[in-house]
Amino acid sequence: MTTFFHSIDQQIDKTNSLLCVGLDPDLNRIPQILHNDPDPILSFNKAIIDATADLACCFKPQMAYYSAASAEDSLAASIAYAQDKKVPVILDFKRGDIGSTADQYVLEAFTRFNADAVTVNPYMGRDSLQPFLDCKDKGVFILCRTSNPGGSDLQNLALENGDKVYQHVAKLAVSEWNANNNVGLVVGATRPEELAQIRTITGAMPFLCPGVGAQGADIGDLMKNGQGGSMLINSSRAILYASEKSDFATAARDEALRTRDAINAHR
Amino acid sequence: MTTFFHSIDQQIDKTNSLLCVGLDPDLNRIPQILHNDPDPILSFNKAIIDATADLACCFKPQMAYYSAASAEDSLAASIAYAQDKKVPVILDFKRGDIGSTADQYVLEAFTRFNADAVTVNPYMGRDSLQPFLDCKDKGVFILCRTSNPGGSDLQNLALENGDKVYQHVAKLAVSEWNANNNVGLVVGATRPEELAQIRTITGAMPFLCPGVGAQGADIGDLMKNGQGGSMLINSSRAILYASEKSDFATAARDEALRTRDAINAHR
Repeated sequence: MTTFFHSIDQQIDKTNSLLCVGLDPDLNRIPQILHNDPDPILSFNKAIIDATADLACCFKPQMAYYSAASAEDSLAASIAYAQDKKVPVILDFKRGDIGSTADQYVLEAFTRFNADAVTVNPYMGRDSLQPFLDCKDKGVFILCRTSNPGGSDLQNLALENGDKVYQHVAKLAVSEWNANNNVGLVVGATRPEELAQIRTITGAMPFLCPGVGAQGADIGDLMKNGQGGSMLINSSRAILYASEKSDFATAARDEALRTRDAINAHR
Repeated sequence: MTTFFHSIDQQIDKTNSLLCVGLDPDLNRIPQILHNDPDPILSFNKAIIDATADLACCFKPQMAYYSAASAEDSLAASIAYAQDKKVPVILDFKRGDIGSTADQYVLEAFTRFNADAVTVNPYMGRDSLQPFLDCKDKGVFILCRTSNPGGSDLQNLALENGDKVYQHVAKLAVSEWNANNNVGLVVGATRPEELAQIRTITGAMPFLCPGVGAQGADIGDLMKNGQGGSMLINSSRAILYASEKSDFATAARDEALRTRDAINAHR
């Protein structure tokens, strides 16, 4: 059995890259030149994948963009297209629900869309995660400390034992949820100090780090504070929409290359 | 503008019912007699809606069942069918993501599927909720204390100020998130003591209470501890699969009637 994290390690070696390229196709921003295609979203994604597959350790489609556009078929085809190029795919859908419902979301992610990994939300606890955790060959990235401004509203609440909520989530991930060695954490690149705290809890557990690019996180801070385990560093909009004209694929490649190299300058 | 909570109050009066009927169509449990229909899920939902519309204050499709079955079109048609009968529909999808992504989920819920309300997950905080909260005529049910066993893993963590996490969520819902009077909370019927605590925080804020039926919550405890505000009491599997034979619709109606009356015996 080839596990997700084994595939990722191979791809990191092959591409010399920790860059995860987000596939968040917004029809309002996809270049006009593609709008007459039968499936503009798929055409856009194929062009981005072609332009960046040798620079990306993984791709990460954000489900919401496909759901809003009734584009589930485009998503499935995009995932298959990336996998044909041997690049693993993380379906970013942040689900979390009771066990019987989580079973259905597992079917969505791994049977319908054939994703290699997912993101999930821990608010509903163990039994909401278990159906994902039971998929030993898949990767399960659990939200821990997110990159957005409101991330602190709940995640940074101080517990009576001195931990913050996000630290408790990291501890549960290590001690309770990772029996199959298929767990990673989502830790925002915009929070380098907290990233360092989480790293001390988790040891080498892989992190998925959004926040570079459009969200403005500093790559040097990120690399310094996250050292000790692998990090998949996501950029979506800064790459996808580097140009909104007909040169979008070339511009995306340039931005992906620039980001990969900026990351590597700190490895 | 007719708001969701206004529509719900009207429907509660009209049906004399606090029962929310879940629409969770599992192809493995839908009666065999429907499997040759062109759209078994839609046929099943229509039969359930026909059988229970005069006994339900709302319907609540669980998105995961439709996503797993590639049945988004069946979901849209089911929602429209319920609304044709003037019954409001809560899309149970428990999303929660950064603001730009939440915008897409708003499009999914309210433009693509035309739902009247949604469930959302608060783990990512204010900006992940705001695009939903901005939809003044829609209802936004925020997860607070969920009915599943793992619900306590995060929600019951003790904060240094003495609150539990779920109590803090309830306080934020009241003080920060309800400027448009369109917020409700998801509070599991399986946790009556905690329901009572949450009621003291929220005053009359509406609750969506899953846990009756297959999950086994006691209706008397629920009604006693939740008094002081409206409660939409959800049952899904116990009604939908009261019979898995050709009499499923009649059996669903009988179970819905029994549940409605059991609730009303404690109002």
